[in-house]
Amino acid sequence: MTPKHPSESLTILTDMVLPSETNALHNLFGGELLARMDRAASISAGRHSRQVSVTASVNHVAFNKSIALGSVVIIEAKVSRAFKTSMEIYIDVWVEDRESGERTKANEAIYTFVAVDATGKPVEVPQIIPQTKLEIHRYDDALRRKQLSLVLAGKMKPEEATELKALFL
Amino acid sequence: MTPKHPSESLTILTDMVLPSETNALHNLFGGELLARMDRAASISAGRHSRQVSVTASVNHVAFNKSIALGSVVIIEAKVSRAFKTSMEIYIDVWVEDRESGERTKANEAIYTFVAVDATGKPVEVPQIIPQTKLEIHRYDDALRRKQLSLVLAGKMKPEEATELKALFL
Amino acid sequence: MTPKHPSESLTILTDMVLPSETNALHNLFGGELLARMDRAASISAGRHSRQVSVTASVNHVAFNKSIALGSVVIIEAKVSRAFKTSMEIYIDVWVEDRESGERTKANEAIYTFVAVDATGKPVEVPQIIPQTKLEIHRYDDALRRKQLSLVLAGKMKPEEATELKALFL
Amino acid sequence: MTPKHPSESLTILTDMVLPSETNALHNLFGGELLARMDRAASISAGRHSRQVSVTASVNHVAFNKSIALGSVVIIEAKVSRAFKTSMEIYIDVWVEDRESGERTKANEAIYTFVAVDATGKPVEVPQIIPQTKLEIHRYDDALRRKQLSLVLAGKMKPEEATELKALFL
Amino acid sequence: MTPKHPSESLTILTDMVLPSETNALHNLFGGELLARMDRAASISAGRHSRQVSVTASVNHVAFNKSIALGSVVIIEAKVSRAFKTSMEIYIDVWVEDRESGERTKANEAIYTFVAVDATGKPVEVPQIIPQTKLEIHRYDDALRRKQLSLVLAGKMKPEEATELKALFL
Amino acid sequence: MTPKHPSESLTILTDMVLPSETNALHNLFGGELLARMDRAASISAGRHSRQVSVTASVNHVAFNKSIALGSVVIIEAKVSRAFKTSMEIYIDVWVEDRESGERTKANEAIYTFVAVDATGKPVEVPQIIPQTKLEIHRYDDALRRKQLSLVLAGKMKPEEATELKALFL
Repeated sequence: MTPKHPSESLTILTDMVLPSETNALHNLFGGELLARMDRAASISAGRHSRQVSVTASVNHVAFNKSIALGSVVIIEAKVSRAFKTSMEIYIDVWVEDRESGERTKANEAIYTFVAVDATGKPVEVPQIIPQTKLEIHRYDDALRRKQLSLVLAGKMKPEEATELKALFL
Repeated sequence: MTPKHPSESLTILTDMVLPSETNALHNLFGGELLARMDRAASISAGRHSRQVSVTASVNHVAFNKSIALGSVVIIEAKVSRAFKTSMEIYIDVWVEDRESGERTKANEAIYTFVAVDATGKPVEVPQIIPQTKLEIHRYDDALRRKQLSLVLAGKMKPEEATELKALFL
Repeated sequence: MTPKHPSESLTILTDMVLPSETNALHNLFGGELLARMDRAASISAGRHSRQVSVTASVNHVAFNKSIALGSVVIIEAKVSRAFKTSMEIYIDVWVEDRESGERTKANEAIYTFVAVDATGKPVEVPQIIPQTKLEIHRYDDALRRKQLSLVLAGKMKPEEATELKALFL
Repeated sequence: MTPKHPSESLTILTDMVLPSETNALHNLFGGELLARMDRAASISAGRHSRQVSVTASVNHVAFNKSIALGSVVIIEAKVSRAFKTSMEIYIDVWVEDRESGERTKANEAIYTFVAVDATGKPVEVPQIIPQTKLEIHRYDDALRRKQLSLVLAGKMKPEEATELKALFL
Repeated sequence: MTPKHPSESLTILTDMVLPSETNALHNLFGGELLARMDRAASISAGRHSRQVSVTASVNHVAFNKSIALGSVVIIEAKVSRAFKTSMEIYIDVWVEDRESGERTKANEAIYTFVAVDATGKPVEVPQIIPQTKLEIHRYDDALRRKQLSLVLAGKMKPEEATELKALFL
Repeated sequence: MTPKHPSESLTILTDMVLPSETNALHNLFGGELLARMDRAASISAGRHSRQVSVTASVNHVAFNKSIALGSVVIIEAKVSRAFKTSMEIYIDVWVEDRESGERTKANEAIYTFVAVDATGKPVEVPQIIPQTKLEIHRYDDALRRKQLSLVLAGKMKPEEATELKALFL
């Protein structure tokens, strides 16, 4: 299986915030953003694996900045690291100012997807070769996040999570 | 007002087809596609004009190919020509095959938007300088479409629609 | 196949504008109106052809007047002309003033639908016999629009589009 | 206040059943039909009273016949009787067979609306003069339903509900 | 078939009012509330019967109090009485004040569901043994409502509706 | 500020899976579940803090089990630990078998909310006193998760994350 670059799975979902997608404060409803990111991440995982891919977990989403009604929201999703059958998708969310055209980072999120065959059984996916500085940084962190996830789920002993442990020593 | 290139208003909306967006034949519902294109075109017009922009007309949409449930749909919208206060937005719709990653053209659409100020009054927009062969071709055709639109609305006499008339002579 | 009158395919869709259907300016979102018109036109085409009918193209939609939140919107769709397997649907959109009950024309749209059998193959449809002055006028124009559409798609030479050409001579 | 005929408030909402509006059995979801009828009834009440009108109660809805995905559904709402500030709206729901064009009665519903001013205070509405046999029949029954409603709410003593009582004696 | 208590079918649906669910006055849209109650009632009927259950009728819904955007709405549905194949579901709707935590009754509704097998044929359901004072009261009233419903549908002669008749004598 | 028990913020959202909420495999769409959990968590945070509360982050969501169309889904959200102005909400998602009535755990999720005043400034919230064994367990883990979150965000040095560090030593 030929490894791939993160850029090959880049998925861009540019869309507006309409009234039907806001909360009572007239900002983008958190649940709607989670749903949009899930759609973008799912397409990104499909582009990397060329398989049906299903959400395995949402590892982290930080809502740093509320997004007002009428905003232009750009969601960019890329596979940051691939494991045997799973992929970590890193998602950047930007808001674009209409007048200046400037983009401000609004959110970051990390989702994990698993590639499956027609019977729902996990199948292998190509590995990732990161290229940019940011891609390499996220690729390295992904291993620690994977270990953390296994530790928290009781599927790995903390002392075996070498890369993660190193953080605290 | 500095003219702009079509690429500066390029807007990409990549999304899936979920069951709630299908018709009774389990293909993307025409109305849903029209709505998605309207959102992408509206962002594109805003990127060109840096103004609030409202839909003035949908000039032409051809539904050549039905788009099945579960498909990945890529909508690309760019300003093809700007007039005094209005912009023609050219939209290409692609469907991406999950296994091969190949893109097939599914639809084309042409929308017109008008930039407005806070009181709803039309305001001037930057002109367009097309660059690629396709952009130049669409830029030229846009004038004929504009004339046609004025003729059909009774706002221009057919004999004054020089570029359009030339088509038939 | 017995020809039919436009009135036999008249389809009326009266509905309100709820907040979930508005844009950031609290007017009916263009995409939502396009979707509603598509639904009405699809029913109208089905009433004329008694077949499953799918959207072939949106030929022209003019958004002349924004429609405010809370408005009553009346969509009236009728087959204006039938060709071999396709039908042109003419759609009038009205807004009704709550206090006076008066109706104001808000939009006009022209959609084309094709009747298909179970395998998706186009099937023949009954012809149209227009009755009112307006129906006759739209029936005549439909031929020019058809020719224009074929010319723009490169499927008819401009010099063969007799009725359309006459406009410019 | 000039009385009105039921026909003056007739509201027709013709629409399709799309997948997003079905239940797990692929029939029109009951809640969606209730919502559509509420919209049609609200417009009908507005046409009669020329006032903002709000749902006061849903008196009776019988779901006699499930409505399949892809069906054409016609909702017809008319004011059947007006009281001081409230209106009874009678709603007939039909399903149209695509091939034969025949309409079958699918549901009937009775909603009550109250006309209100800007502060939400109930305001007077015109009376109703029924014309057709069916309108007269529904007009007469409306009084019994009104009494029943008051009796059930404890706002009228059963022995004072003259017209209703007569049913059982 | 072992009879059941109403508490065994208690279904709680706590949710917010988002902008997409409001009417033009920024209160919860009546149709949306009807739809939510239908969902809760359907689950309640399923919990009692352990069968697929479909809406047979909405007997009464009183909209006493408008519910503002941003409110927390609690819908509680319980089977109030079971007949041979049908169940009456009593629904209480509460609004919770954010600051005090106090609940105010906003609406009451009564729906009837029928349990069906895979072919859509009605099947028998367990009987109900009410326990609390309120459950007993609603259980008793349910019979009168059932008779009323049959009388209005012309399926029972008024003079045979013993319990109902007693109300008026 | 009087501390509260987790049970005081328990929020139950029981609902069905309708076709409009499914993905192309006819299971509950991940994004829809994320949105529903966000709504339940937001209500739970409001019940604990009696303040407007906004999503700060989604810390972890595991999608262990796909949820089929037509399922009954029960979301239970409770505040597991409160910090100065933020609250960790622990969410359990169950699927209920229609025939047996048995509940199976489908997902778990952890969201963080922050209580804010009218200007959006974080405000203090009551502390939590866990009662059941499970509540105590989640309360203890919440501190480690909080530290982890601060470490990952670069707001705490790993060596200062005492409770978290202990895991690896």
